[in-house]
Amino acid sequence: MAPKTSKLKVFSLGGIQEIGKNMTVLEYGQDIIVIDCGVSFPEDDMLGIDLVIPDFTYLVRNKDKIRGLVLTHGHEDHIGAVPYFFRDLNVPVYGTRLTLGLVEIKLKEHNLLNKTTRTIVSAGETITLGKFQIEFINVTHSIADSCALAITTPVGVVIHSGDFKIDYTPINGDMIDLQRFAMLGKKGVLLFMCESTNVEQSGYTLSERSVGVSFEHIFNEARHSRIIVATFSSNIHRIQQVIYSAYNYGRRVAFVGRSMLNVVKTATELGYLEAPDKMIIDINEIKNYEDNEIVIITTGTQGEPMSALSRMSSAEHKQVEIKPDDKVIISASSIPGNERSISRVVNDLMKRGADVIYEGLMDTHVSGHAKQEEIRLLHSLVRPKYLMPVHGEYKHLCRHRELAMSMGLSPDNIFVMNVGDVLELSSNSAKVTTTVPSGQVLIDGLGVGDVGNIVLKDRKILSQDGLIVIVVSVESETGRIVSGPDLISRGFVYVRESEDLMEEGKKVIQEAIDNADSKSITQWNYLKSVMKDSVKEFFWQKTKRNPMILPIVMEV
Amino acid sequence: MAPKTSKLKVFSLGGIQEIGKNMTVLEYGQDIIVIDCGVSFPEDDMLGIDLVIPDFTYLVRNKDKIRGLVLTHGHEDHIGAVPYFFRDLNVPVYGTRLTLGLVEIKLKEHNLLNKTTRTIVSAGETITLGKFQIEFINVTHSIADSCALAITTPVGVVIHSGDFKIDYTPINGDMIDLQRFAMLGKKGVLLFMCESTNVEQSGYTLSERSVGVSFEHIFNEARHSRIIVATFSSNIHRIQQVIYSAYNYGRRVAFVGRSMLNVVKTATELGYLEAPDKMIIDINEIKNYEDNEIVIITTGTQGEPMSALSRMSSAEHKQVEIKPDDKVIISASSIPGNERSISRVVNDLMKRGADVIYEGLMDTHVSGHAKQEEIRLLHSLVRPKYLMPVHGEYKHLCRHRELAMSMGLSPDNIFVMNVGDVLELSSNSAKVTTTVPSGQVLIDGLGVGDVGNIVLKDRKILSQDGLIVIVVSVESETGRIVSGPDLISRGFVYVRESEDLMEEGKKVIQEAIDNADSKSITQWNYLKSVMKDSVKEFFWQKTKRNPMILPIVMEV
Repeated sequence: MAPKTSKLKVFSLGGIQEIGKNMTVLEYGQDIIVIDCGVSFPEDDMLGIDLVIPDFTYLVRNKDKIRGLVLTHGHEDHIGAVPYFFRDLNVPVYGTRLTLGLVEIKLKEHNLLNKTTRTIVSAGETITLGKFQIEFINVTHSIADSCALAITTPVGVVIHSGDFKIDYTPINGDMIDLQRFAMLGKKGVLLFMCESTNVEQSGYTLSERSVGVSFEHIFNEARHSRIIVATFSSNIHRIQQVIYSAYNYGRRVAFVGRSMLNVVKTATELGYLEAPDKMIIDINEIKNYEDNEIVIITTGTQGEPMSALSRMSSAEHKQVEIKPDDKVIISASSIPGNERSISRVVNDLMKRGADVIYEGLMDTHVSGHAKQEEIRLLHSLVRPKYLMPVHGEYKHLCRHRELAMSMGLSPDNIFVMNVGDVLELSSNSAKVTTTVPSGQVLIDGLGVGDVGNIVLKDRKILSQDGLIVIVVSVESETGRIVSGPDLISRGFVYVRESEDLMEEGKKVIQEAIDNADSKSITQWNYLKSVMKDSVKEFFWQKTKRNPMILPIVMEV
Repeated sequence: MAPKTSKLKVFSLGGIQEIGKNMTVLEYGQDIIVIDCGVSFPEDDMLGIDLVIPDFTYLVRNKDKIRGLVLTHGHEDHIGAVPYFFRDLNVPVYGTRLTLGLVEIKLKEHNLLNKTTRTIVSAGETITLGKFQIEFINVTHSIADSCALAITTPVGVVIHSGDFKIDYTPINGDMIDLQRFAMLGKKGVLLFMCESTNVEQSGYTLSERSVGVSFEHIFNEARHSRIIVATFSSNIHRIQQVIYSAYNYGRRVAFVGRSMLNVVKTATELGYLEAPDKMIIDINEIKNYEDNEIVIITTGTQGEPMSALSRMSSAEHKQVEIKPDDKVIISASSIPGNERSISRVVNDLMKRGADVIYEGLMDTHVSGHAKQEEIRLLHSLVRPKYLMPVHGEYKHLCRHRELAMSMGLSPDNIFVMNVGDVLELSSNSAKVTTTVPSGQVLIDGLGVGDVGNIVLKDRKILSQDGLIVIVVSVESETGRIVSGPDLISRGFVYVRESEDLMEEGKKVIQEAIDNADSKSITQWNYLKSVMKDSVKEFFWQKTKRNPMILPIVMEV
């Protein structure tokens, strides 16, 4: 049992001072709960990396204390790392029906479905995990069945906003439960962990329903065209609105893209997506309909090279060939870093004659995240003693602090933290006391964490100027060269047009060997560095490039 | 002499259906003039590439016809390839004073200054090159001394807008010469080549002067802070406005960043930038002043890793150490693709305590390019018979076509072209007839065009999963292996923790060799492919990675 003086520890293993891989930990005495378990996408310098997940070291060390993993909603940056979590850990998972439905798709792919215990919780319900009572509160967001969490701990109530916007007219499901936030606030909230994604943007985010109005306009004007809508597969509400408009204009709907098919199947089975009988057709059936009788819903809003939309734009998609007068709606905004890929897809679609509606041209997208006034509204209901801005880069967390200060919260009560920083709270105090291990674990193929800085640095060098291999075979005892030096290059220069350069390079190495200290030449490291240095300098002078140079000495 | 039936040929070697490397060619009979000679920055998949320039093949083949290179303004995407142009070609260059001043910096760096003939032309002047009379018309843009060109040809007048915005209150120099466009339009313009950068944006671009108003506000509020302003070095007007505000608030100005120092020196010498005596100080002198007595003007608005601002953000800048309460103004918008780098710099500056004003937070930047209403205004003055939208991706060119159609121009008279497409014009006809060689020439170090698809593909593979070298030494006659197989990897797995994996890999190769057709084993290509295939499959199974595999057989 925890001594009376126990404090609540709160820390993030991801999602603060970064975008993605959200994960928050609450610890009291012998009990730990984990909130969310997301992935992030690799940064530009993480060459060849597929995904990034949180460092689970602290959790593995304390696995006996973990009472459960609680998920706020089913986006990748909140559930994407669940399969990796279950490689090292096994605890019950709690979430809403759709959230767990999406988790199950992942667990199946990793053959982990039977190893895990999953419990569906509905908004309004409360579960008890050790010393924590966790209440799920309905919020609106760009995926259905999203929740905030109100966690009653021995030192007070902690509210985690999850991801939210304030949508008074959601597509289906209830609006965000503002009354509940108000009641909790009135009773007293110790700590508010609130998301910060759109805190730089003034005003309010428009309702998801406003996108439906745009769809109706577009469908009305494009009566003779085939319509293709690209959106995130997880945006069930958006997909539902396309289906509504398709219904109104007498069109069938076909889905393409692996993740789109997976999510739509799950969402439909669980009742989150509805369509009249026979309205949904297989993509292979579209040829049986006129252009103005179909809508295709696809993935690929971010210009991902392997996505369905991208393959359509380059005429590599098997079932869908873009033709003049096709109407393509990209119903999403660009995630920073993807602008150029998206432009490429838009340009290519237009070159095939499609009319493309993309970001900024019409109101075919609204954000799922609260802007300043919505964040203020939630603050004004919750009125926390302490605030910990989460879900944002450092600049977002700082703006969130400013926003809270403008509403009267003391800067001493606001904690802009880093991953791994531990906030210790009692009922009337809060202080960052220590840190736990945290960081980025890189996934590359089957490898989890086996690619680190050395490998990435090598990939960087290789990517910039390629590589040169120098090989010699030498007699082990005398050091006499019996074959080579040979030079092989890749990614350095176009070999066929650079034969002279490579021949010269060989001569340079041979001269360097001839001039080297003959006594030391049987020390292979010495021989290697003689070869490497000579050729490095030579090629730099000739090309101003710095390829990786790999000297190999074969003893025979 | 050209026969009477000669037509005017107009084509671009860069700048249409792409951003950057602007270059336009006009040819009539035995005369060619070239307009602009810019670079573009490498696309994401051009690993290790420094710059991209136009393909000059057509110009080299017709070099005797070229009467001159005419430059509209001094931005990189219009003059950056001039030194490369002069490797292959030598023709007189014409441009305004500042434009040629900036060109000279480049020519000096390439030791080409003495090889070239440069002639300064002022706005309002006309030069004759072969059959062409070229009039320079003053326009406003984000660099001083920018011009449009009105080219009188035997078949009619061609107007090239250059880059422009309509600024009625420019910082110095005259406003855009709308009267001249109107007069030319009244007399009759055959072809209008008009830039399309901001054609997707409705309304008007604000005057450069509006940024000065924001600077005054910020300087007024930051009376106790050091102020650091990042902007493009070529944006002389912006720099001038910072100097004005610095003067008003009694601050000295210091410059950092190589390109900033170069451009400021040239612009000051040529009279485009003015500051009271002793107001400009060397960056090493800033320590002699209080924080509120200095402004530092720097490069690095795009988060470029080696830029001064980026080095300040990571505490690697020698002369400037960021400290709490520094006010940093990023006076630029993000170029698509740079968003993540910029965010990194902003976050890092804020972590050091600086207050950072970046895109969207205050009006510290305006575009130098015309938005829809400005483009419409110029169209309404010029009233061309034919239109060729330039300076934009395909989507921009298409929007420009729509804009022109909305003003009554027939789609048959609008030419959305690609680089290399040749438009042939007579006084009453225009038609795309043929193409000339065109494309992207990649610059990597000293190499111009020696890196092509094969090298880039290799770099891509190397960047994703690294490389494995397999070496064996064999007796040339018997094929007996006398050393190896050895495996060396880079960028694949962390070697120290993967010794077992590599040992296993060696065994797999050895087995493959043992099982191979012993008669063919002395054919080294056969041996290589046996080794390569075995190890490729093995590592894919173990890691789901596909490194480049380089088998090397040394005959001894």
